[in-house]
Amino acid sequence: MSLIGRHVLSSDLFDRDELERLFALADLLAPVARGREVVRVLEGAVMASLFFEASTRTRLSCESAFSRLGGSVISSTGAEIMSISKGESLADTSRVVSGYSDLIVMRHPEESAVHEFAAATNVPVVNGGNGAGEHPTQALLDMYTLHREFSRTGRSMDGRRIALVGDLRHGRTVHSLIKLVSLYRDLTIVCVAPGPLGMPAELLELAEGRGHRIELSDRPESGLKDADLVYATRLQTERFADQPLPYSDEFRIDRALVARACREDAVIMHPLPRDSRPGSNDLATDLNRDHRLAIFRQTDAGIPMRMALFASVLGVADQVPGALRPATWFQPEYTGPDDAPFYRNPAS
Amino acid sequence: MSLIGRHVLSSDLFDRDELERLFALADLLAPVARGREVVRVLEGAVMASLFFEASTRTRLSCESAFSRLGGSVISSTGAEIMSISKGESLADTSRVVSGYSDLIVMRHPEESAVHEFAAATNVPVVNGGNGAGEHPTQALLDMYTLHREFSRTGRSMDGRRIALVGDLRHGRTVHSLIKLVSLYRDLTIVCVAPGPLGMPAELLELAEGRGHRIELSDRPESGLKDADLVYATRLQTERFADQPLPYSDEFRIDRALVARACREDAVIMHPLPRDSRPGSNDLATDLNRDHRLAIFRQTDAGIPMRMALFASVLGVADQVPGALRPATWFQPEYTGPDDAPFYRNPAS
Amino acid sequence: MSLIGRHVLSSDLFDRDELERLFALADLLAPVARGREVVRVLEGAVMASLFFEASTRTRLSCESAFSRLGGSVISSTGAEIMSISKGESLADTSRVVSGYSDLIVMRHPEESAVHEFAAATNVPVVNGGNGAGEHPTQALLDMYTLHREFSRTGRSMDGRRIALVGDLRHGRTVHSLIKLVSLYRDLTIVCVAPGPLGMPAELLELAEGRGHRIELSDRPESGLKDADLVYATRLQTERFADQPLPYSDEFRIDRALVARACREDAVIMHPLPRDSRPGSNDLATDLNRDHRLAIFRQTDAGIPMRMALFASVLGVADQVPGALRPATWFQPEYTGPDDAPFYRNPAS
Repeated sequence: MSLIGRHVLSSDLFDRDELERLFALADLLAPVARGREVVRVLEGAVMASLFFEASTRTRLSCESAFSRLGGSVISSTGAEIMSISKGESLADTSRVVSGYSDLIVMRHPEESAVHEFAAATNVPVVNGGNGAGEHPTQALLDMYTLHREFSRTGRSMDGRRIALVGDLRHGRTVHSLIKLVSLYRDLTIVCVAPGPLGMPAELLELAEGRGHRIELSDRPESGLKDADLVYATRLQTERFADQPLPYSDEFRIDRALVARACREDAVIMHPLPRDSRPGSNDLATDLNRDHRLAIFRQTDAGIPMRMALFASVLGVADQVPGALRPATWFQPEYTGPDDAPFYRNPAS
Repeated sequence: MSLIGRHVLSSDLFDRDELERLFALADLLAPVARGREVVRVLEGAVMASLFFEASTRTRLSCESAFSRLGGSVISSTGAEIMSISKGESLADTSRVVSGYSDLIVMRHPEESAVHEFAAATNVPVVNGGNGAGEHPTQALLDMYTLHREFSRTGRSMDGRRIALVGDLRHGRTVHSLIKLVSLYRDLTIVCVAPGPLGMPAELLELAEGRGHRIELSDRPESGLKDADLVYATRLQTERFADQPLPYSDEFRIDRALVARACREDAVIMHPLPRDSRPGSNDLATDLNRDHRLAIFRQTDAGIPMRMALFASVLGVADQVPGALRPATWFQPEYTGPDDAPFYRNPAS
Repeated sequence: MSLIGRHVLSSDLFDRDELERLFALADLLAPVARGREVVRVLEGAVMASLFFEASTRTRLSCESAFSRLGGSVISSTGAEIMSISKGESLADTSRVVSGYSDLIVMRHPEESAVHEFAAATNVPVVNGGNGAGEHPTQALLDMYTLHREFSRTGRSMDGRRIALVGDLRHGRTVHSLIKLVSLYRDLTIVCVAPGPLGMPAELLELAEGRGHRIELSDRPESGLKDADLVYATRLQTERFADQPLPYSDEFRIDRALVARACREDAVIMHPLPRDSRPGSNDLATDLNRDHRLAIFRQTDAGIPMRMALFASVLGVADQVPGALRPATWFQPEYTGPDDAPFYRNPAS
């Protein structure tokens, strides 16, 4: 399979071989993502960034990745793009913007929109999140982070114990993640959620069909035990309006809980944003200096992984090795002050 | 006449020689616009894109064109720019932004604004649409599309039969188009509109004064007969508030009407967006695979034509031929799946 | 002191030596800022531009400056970025965006926000205005303008008479300016303001502590007498709600007042925007062709000065001299038609 010229609408597009090829390319591009090297393989190319729904994080990450490859970006977001397209079909909008660009990244609140967009053009369309559907570039960066964290501590992906924690019903990131992680072998997948927020049955069946063990739990304290990966998600409170939240503070993952329940070499991830207001039952900030907390290594990983994806889809992956050159501007040794413990004191 | 350093406020700026020079330059730049070649003659230059009124299509097209020439873009739109300029004169805003850029593209809901802008600076100002006034870059891309469609089928522009259809009173695109098309010779211009929406008298006089034949019609079925060009426009329903629309579904241009009324080598254009909702009396989607429908070739043509204009205004047109190099990334053979019939089966 | 890798949060960061180094670098970069030369020392670098509060002028100026150095920009403004970060700490937002970029410019309505941002990352953060706090890049461009205007007329900064006029209580630009200008020697600083809008006492003490003479006045006509610099500010009417404005039209600085009160070689500056509506008591447009009015030379100066700052913070200042090359596109001799008198008839 080749990614050249393909639409990237779902994480179903990727098999294990393709993931490993993307990981290798992302490794090569990581110094560019951190501003230590320069590569200009897409100089002259144009990406259109169309976010019918606001998403600063994903949009900026994609735009930075395309820029780091040497390309230019044209961008429209939210109210502006929505008002313009009044009465115009998504197919027309897509076909028009295809004539302005070499690649389109789009997010839309309706699940079907990205498919209508892709059907109207041969210019590659990358799904930047389609409602309750998929978010394949997030799934890729999650897998890449996991790959790096496990590699660093000498673990392979196969045979690991994976705990998914929180609102597993509504979180599209954990849905995409379970599809990709289950491409590996011999996993134990622990779904830790309050009763009404459990993982959809068809995803459990998919994982079981691929030979993995499933365990269900509604108690984080026991669910996190022995896990190699703890993947926490944000409770999407906007979905519960006036109802009582189905979440107790047991689901607050903080230093005390991690000290009691987690392995010393566990990897703790979260798709962000996390709710840091007092009383939120989310991933706590008192873990910021814990080397197990990989959330910023995770967002950092979005740049090289999206670069790898764009370079693959546009067929310039082979040109990358010969095109790298050193950057000459200042870059801090550690991006965040809290990154230092991680580099100085890798998980033992 | 040279375009170097000129403001582009009206399509009156162009004569027939200038149009042909721009067509030739746009032909040269077309492979760059499609991502097949690269040209970096404006590397280091900055375009300011100031849209006081939303216009995703024109804005993105201009920004892509400037980027394809190697330049950078700074951009402000809608509410942001309007709120900032509270109390500040347009002259001050213009003069300030002139110090940040080499070229300004601006759209403003008031017809006079672009003139105030241009008066305050020597940095070239390009009108991206000024209220009910002009939209010269749209007129240029329309003319370029027409030139290419006719060339492809061995017709010259002179002597053609041109049908303008729809709301000819309010559509600034048809106003600009009639000014430019009438620079050619010996045309028959058929204005097909409901009574109250006819072409303004002064534009009819202009065309007649240049020696063209004018025909008026309120019946599309007969008005489209034998036309080389059918230029349809959107009914600007927002202008009619609660009044009954002065449009019958006779003005819906669809496959059945085209089959009955149009030549086999007619060119069908539309400035877009078209209203694709059920019941709209606009250009119909059932024509999408008809080779006569040139609407996406038309929006595509906006990139090379705007590149040609920017390169001419900034005086780098002569450098283009020596600066072209092949692009090395993937580009689909056909941008839209519906483009294929056109390329495979050119109008006979 | 070196600026490499430093956060730029306050004008306190700069001493006189550092200012002079920045002036020299800005002089070198001025032809690039005007589009006459090209320098690409930041090709491959990415600046993140995060304006939690609208500011077209500062944002576009910073984005143009970074682009003129060869870098790319990712940008988010206003409502979009505010809504996304709901519940997310500024520290998280900062750390995440740091992984996407080499430099962050941010504006926020709360004074403490930029400090929270800077504490969360080692990627340099440049304060683009933090509420009632500071606006250091504006202070730098004001100083650079002053340096150029005085140099052009053979005056040194030391020993000058400086009149600050208008709302000196709320204007953060005059606060930053008094800090920087008082790094020079032997000044007379005249604060001309209505009683309730005087300069804060601690800033007067700072200037006196550095050996400068302070004079207070509430009468522009006498306060402007013999001043080398007249720095006018906008009355921030939004701060007075329903109260009567504490300003008489005596504070309207127009041609008549300037003719009566100002030296022939005075320099008249203003941070812009100025309120040009009838009846506003601001800097008047009838001065536009007066060679003493430096307000557009002042906004122009923002580009080379911000380029100098970014190049210094990212450690590429030394590479600039060897990297300059001529630009080949058109640039007008004078940016504004009103600039001509200045160049033709420099202050005698």
